[in-house]
Amino acid sequence: MTAPPAGRPPEEAALIATTTVNFAYFTGVWLETYERFKAVVICGGRKAAVVPALDAGRIAGEVYAYKDGEDPAQALRQAAAGCRTDVVYIDGGTTLRHLDIVKRALPHARLATADAVIRELRAVKRRDEVERIKTAALKIRAVLESLELTPGISERQLAARIYTSLYEEGLDPGPILVQFGPNTALPHQEPTEKKLRQGEAAVLDVSASYRGYYADLTKSLYYGNPPEEYRRIYAAVEEAQRAALSAARPGAGASEVDKAARGTIERWGYGPYFIHRTGHGLGLEIHEAPDVSPASPDVLKPGMVFTIEPGVYIPGKYGVRLEIDVHLGEGGPEVL
Amino acid sequence: MTAPPAGRPPEEAALIATTTVNFAYFTGVWLETYERFKAVVICGGRKAAVVPALDAGRIAGEVYAYKDGEDPAQALRQAAAGCRTDVVYIDGGTTLRHLDIVKRALPHARLATADAVIRELRAVKRRDEVERIKTAALKIRAVLESLELTPGISERQLAARIYTSLYEEGLDPGPILVQFGPNTALPHQEPTEKKLRQGEAAVLDVSASYRGYYADLTKSLYYGNPPEEYRRIYAAVEEAQRAALSAARPGAGASEVDKAARGTIERWGYGPYFIHRTGHGLGLEIHEAPDVSPASPDVLKPGMVFTIEPGVYIPGKYGVRLEIDVHLGEGGPEVL
Repeated sequence: MTAPPAGRPPEEAALIATTTVNFAYFTGVWLETYERFKAVVICGGRKAAVVPALDAGRIAGEVYAYKDGEDPAQALRQAAAGCRTDVVYIDGGTTLRHLDIVKRALPHARLATADAVIRELRAVKRRDEVERIKTAALKIRAVLESLELTPGISERQLAARIYTSLYEEGLDPGPILVQFGPNTALPHQEPTEKKLRQGEAAVLDVSASYRGYYADLTKSLYYGNPPEEYRRIYAAVEEAQRAALSAARPGAGASEVDKAARGTIERWGYGPYFIHRTGHGLGLEIHEAPDVSPASPDVLKPGMVFTIEPGVYIPGKYGVRLEIDVHLGEGGPEVL
Repeated sequence: MTAPPAGRPPEEAALIATTTVNFAYFTGVWLETYERFKAVVICGGRKAAVVPALDAGRIAGEVYAYKDGEDPAQALRQAAAGCRTDVVYIDGGTTLRHLDIVKRALPHARLATADAVIRELRAVKRRDEVERIKTAALKIRAVLESLELTPGISERQLAARIYTSLYEEGLDPGPILVQFGPNTALPHQEPTEKKLRQGEAAVLDVSASYRGYYADLTKSLYYGNPPEEYRRIYAAVEEAQRAALSAARPGAGASEVDKAARGTIERWGYGPYFIHRTGHGLGLEIHEAPDVSPASPDVLKPGMVFTIEPGVYIPGKYGVRLEIDVHLGEGGPEVL
C-alpha cells in the first residue's frame, strides 16, 4: 500500500470498505461472511455492495452478487464502474486475501488507506445511532440495578447471570468483567472462580449492543462496610468523573477531558493508581474514536459518543472504576 | 502480495503469522491485541514472538517487545534476524495496517502467502488439542442432556439458559442456535422471540470452546408426538450420519464423506432438502480444515477433527440436523 495522497480523498474516488464493521456502517447490515469476500464501494454519493449470492437478499440498493466458484473481483469491478479508480481508498483492516481480489478487480489502481476518513465519519453519530447506544445503556443500567449480590457467588457465575439478563433484555452482550476482592485492582482481569465474601470490593464492567451499537458501563461497590481508604478512593473517582464531564464541550480536546479526570485524581494523591485512559468512543465497536487519553489528537464534536471511566486501583487491595456513556450535544454532554 | 513460489516454503525461510488465531496456534497463547501489532516468526525450528510490551509477560520463549510509540517494525526485524528473508511467508488474514509494518521491517522481502501450509498444519491436531475439543464436546453434551424444554419458553430465553450452563461448565460459548417450529427449517436462523408450543420441532446447535478449542454439536427433537414425515426425515438423517461416519477413514477424500451422507439422503428422497455441506474441521476456529463438502480437495489424515452434520429442511414445516464431532484415529473415527 502506498502512502495516502495528502488531504481528503476526492468525492468521485472509490472508497472500498471490506471489513464487517465498516460494511455495517455504510450499508446498515451486519453481515458476517467469514472467508467470503464482501465490500461496499462508495463514490460521488453512490453506494454499491459486493456480496456472496447467499446474502444478496439482505442488502438493499445496488448489489453485485457472486456465487461460490465465481471470482468476486468481477463483481467488484462492476460495483466500482463509474468511480475514479486511479487512486482507490481502502480500509486498513482489509486482509491480504481480500486485497488480492481488489487488485485483480482494479489492477491499475494505486491503493491508499481510507482509515482516517472512515474513523472521522464514524466518530460523529447520526441520531439513530445515538438512540441505539442510549437504548443499550438504559438496558444495561436496568440489569445492573436489578442485580442482587449473594455471598459465595463466583465471578463467573455472576458474569453468566448478567449475560442472561442482557440477552433477555434483547441486547447482544459484549465483554463482561466481574471482579471481587483484590481482583478489582486488576482492571482487565477476566471473571474467575473467585467467590464473593463479606467485606470485599466488587467491580462490574458490562458492555452490550442494541441493534449493533454498544454501550459500556461500570459500577463499583463494596459488599459490607467499606474501609475509610475505599470511601476516599470512591469519592476521588466520582469527582474525577464530574470534572471530566464538565470538560466535555464541543471544540475541546479529548485530551483535556482526560486531563480533567487525571488532574482530579492526582490532587487526591492517587495519580500513580490511575493506570489507563479516561475513555473511548462507542459505536459499532466498543472501542472507537474519539480516544480520551493524555496524548489524544481528537477534538470533540457534537454527535460524538464516548465513555468517561476514571479509576483508581490499589494493588492487592481493591479498585474503583466508574464508567458512564456520554453523548455530546451542541450545548454540552448528555449522560446516556 | 506476489504469488507464492511453488511447493512448500524452505525450512529456513521466515513464516510470519500475525492473526490472533494463528498466533495462538504457534505460541499457545490467545492474545487479543486489537489494533496493536503482534506476530510470531518461525524458521528453522526457531520461534520468536513480537508483542506489545504490556503483553510480553504472557509469552514464553524468545520475545521482542515494543512499547506504545515505538515502531513494532524494529522488533519484528530483530525477531526475523537469522531467518531467510528473501521470500517471507505471511498469513493471508494479515491486515494492510500490519502489512505496512512487515514491509518496513523487511523492505527487500518478497511476500508470499503462508495460508496453505498453516491450514495443513492446523488441520492435523496434536493429542492435547484433541483432548481439549473432547472436553468441550463432553461438556456441551452434558448441557444438552440436562436441558428441560418447557412450553412457552422463547428461543432467545433457551439460548441464554444454554449459554449460562456452558459458561458455568467452564466453557467459552460460541454461536448458539435455538430454533422452534418452522424456524427449524432455516439452518442459519438466529434465536428469535418465538415461543415453543406443543407439537413443534426444535433444533439446538451449540458451539463452545475449552481452553481455546471448539466443539460443535446439534440435537434435533420434536416437542410432542411427531408426524410420520418428521420421523422419516429423522431416520434419513441418522442413516446419513452413520454412512458418513463409515466413510471417514484415513486416506479417504473429505468429499467421499460428504457423498456418503448426501447419497443416503438422496435415496430417502430428500436430496433437494439437504442444502449445506456435511461438515467442517474444528479447532481454534469453529470452521477450519478439513472442508467436508462435495467439492472438497481435502484428504483425511489421522489427527483431523471435524463435524458430521447432515440435515433435511422442509420449508415452512420443520428441519432435522444431527451433528457429531469426530476425531480420526489411525484405525478410524472416534466420536467425541
